[in-house]
Amino acid sequence: MDAVVARRGATTPTVIDVPRPEPGPGEALVRTLRVGVDGTDREVLAGTHGGFPDDEDYLILGHEAVGVVVDPNGTSLTAGDIVVPTVRRLPATGTNDYFERGQADMAPPSMCRERGIDGAHGFMAEYFTSPAETLVEIPESLAPLGFLVEPVSISEKAIEHASASRSAFDWQPESALVLGNGPLGLVTLAMLDGYDRTYCVGRRDRPDPTIDIIERLGATYVDSRETPVESFPTVHEPADFVYEATGHAKHAIETVAALAPGGVGALLGVPESWAFEVDGGDFHKDMVMNNKALVGSVNSSAAHFRAAADRLTGFPTWFTEALVTDVVGVEAAAEAFANDERTIKTAVEFDTL
Amino acid sequence: MDAVVARRGATTPTVIDVPRPEPGPGEALVRTLRVGVDGTDREVLAGTHGGFPDDEDYLILGHEAVGVVVDPNGTSLTAGDIVVPTVRRLPATGTNDYFERGQADMAPPSMCRERGIDGAHGFMAEYFTSPAETLVEIPESLAPLGFLVEPVSISEKAIEHASASRSAFDWQPESALVLGNGPLGLVTLAMLDGYDRTYCVGRRDRPDPTIDIIERLGATYVDSRETPVESFPTVHEPADFVYEATGHAKHAIETVAALAPGGVGALLGVPESWAFEVDGGDFHKDMVMNNKALVGSVNSSAAHFRAAADRLTGFPTWFTEALVTDVVGVEAAAEAFANDERTIKTAVEFDTL
Repeated sequence: MDAVVARRGATTPTVIDVPRPEPGPGEALVRTLRVGVDGTDREVLAGTHGGFPDDEDYLILGHEAVGVVVDPNGTSLTAGDIVVPTVRRLPATGTNDYFERGQADMAPPSMCRERGIDGAHGFMAEYFTSPAETLVEIPESLAPLGFLVEPVSISEKAIEHASASRSAFDWQPESALVLGNGPLGLVTLAMLDGYDRTYCVGRRDRPDPTIDIIERLGATYVDSRETPVESFPTVHEPADFVYEATGHAKHAIETVAALAPGGVGALLGVPESWAFEVDGGDFHKDMVMNNKALVGSVNSSAAHFRAAADRLTGFPTWFTEALVTDVVGVEAAAEAFANDERTIKTAVEFDTL
Repeated sequence: MDAVVARRGATTPTVIDVPRPEPGPGEALVRTLRVGVDGTDREVLAGTHGGFPDDEDYLILGHEAVGVVVDPNGTSLTAGDIVVPTVRRLPATGTNDYFERGQADMAPPSMCRERGIDGAHGFMAEYFTSPAETLVEIPESLAPLGFLVEPVSISEKAIEHASASRSAFDWQPESALVLGNGPLGLVTLAMLDGYDRTYCVGRRDRPDPTIDIIERLGATYVDSRETPVESFPTVHEPADFVYEATGHAKHAIETVAALAPGGVGALLGVPESWAFEVDGGDFHKDMVMNNKALVGSVNSSAAHFRAAADRLTGFPTWFTEALVTDVVGVEAAAEAFANDERTIKTAVEFDTL
């Protein structure tokens, strides 16, 4: 079958022929419909994130998949179920407390593998197998957009953890700032419809399709070339919630400065090592005297996938239509990994219902 | 009546004669029993924290008080009630959302005054008045230690907020690290009796009374001159919970490095501005990839005071006896502000039951 892979030493994806997988005990066989592409996939291709399966010279890409169960293989699934696979799997060393407790999403990198990212093949192939408990059923009507369930679930978790961190008091957030106008930032902005005022930071000139989406969502576009994040609270307002989705290393510190008293920042981006000077005294004092909070968040659980499927059904059609700029066939898979200013969210389509 | 005050320009406390306060509408008159001294009081005296009431050249010190209601003045209190006052009061500008919602402890510094600290007289006098709703009743048996309710309440809030930030998953913390062996650090260590393994960082040589307390509480003393906080996780173990009670500016960053995956750090200390180099990329990435959290916490609410009174009754007698190294009369008040290696927690006694 066709599979889109990263090869050791190559920075562009390749389509190769690999054997169709056979489901093992407890696993179902899934026919792939679509697989989304995100910044992590590009980092995997660039070699800056994740890694190959042991003893293999290629990694099947893709962690944002939707497919149809073709062989339930004795599991509780039924042929024809539309499913989205979670991403984390047991490490080579076997099980551990995180998996035993059903909290694989809270495991450190050394205690899990991530399909399509780190140490385990992904879903960007005509078929994949996966343990039944990692396959989250979604309504058939969501199948065309099912590849968005995983990225939305990432924000479901981050927002849940951020809200939890403010649950010890009667938090009444009104303003939210999203750092980053990539697909994760835009999806998150669409999820923050309970906020009175939302802002989204980017570095793009108008006309730009992401700015159009930001403004159609009722948010204010903030060009960080004109208004650096550290100036945001004075130019606009301190934000009750800040969501960091760029991986710019200085944002962890700047997020706190941009927060209103009692606010919380969620960190999602993954920067490289970078040493620079900060006023650590001001950062520390601001955290304390203004009761601020920060949460780092990565990956998500099956519960977040289910919440994401619900969330997706509530997104306006214009939004998902504007967000998904390309769905390409497997023969054009490399195009789905391109990242120009016209591209927002892309997917590779293997089959349809 | 006698009052222990900070005067503008002076860095040692003075006892002066001031008029006995008259309770206004909704206020009760309280005869002071004891008032504790902490690091914040020393910062107020040093002029590095808080400020004088408008148009006054002195500030009555003290925010850790216990007293007896002598004139309920038509409030719901009864003469003879043992009470502990909360610290925050309305700012000069009048009420605001934080006070309206009963969340004065979440207000930023500009939206509150703090008795004995910032802009309002404290409790270190023979009598004080306070609105009835700011006076938390405690059992008469707790009266001698009632001055510990406020500092314990500070940690009740911080621990509550830290736990809340991990409430979105099944957090099962086992190890805790307290940065600082001052009275707040030691009190917090005594509160962490649900942890399997606890550690407390100080910079003292043996023999030392704080090290004795740390070890009698079953915790491991960590000398930061030998084991800097950044080395703590490799020398000992990453901690599920880190409590920062020194105000050392680098600790905000180092706290995150000391955390186990899924852990949370509570920041309590209040450093001055201090710029230094940090690997902001590693800090940011560690927060994200290991699902770590930070909460800043200051002040506390009446609910935290009530929890603190319950907590105090559970402390072993040996602990509070070892913790409170001096209770002095008002004539020797200056001694209570001394801070040598023999001193842990001190109080000024105005009267007894």
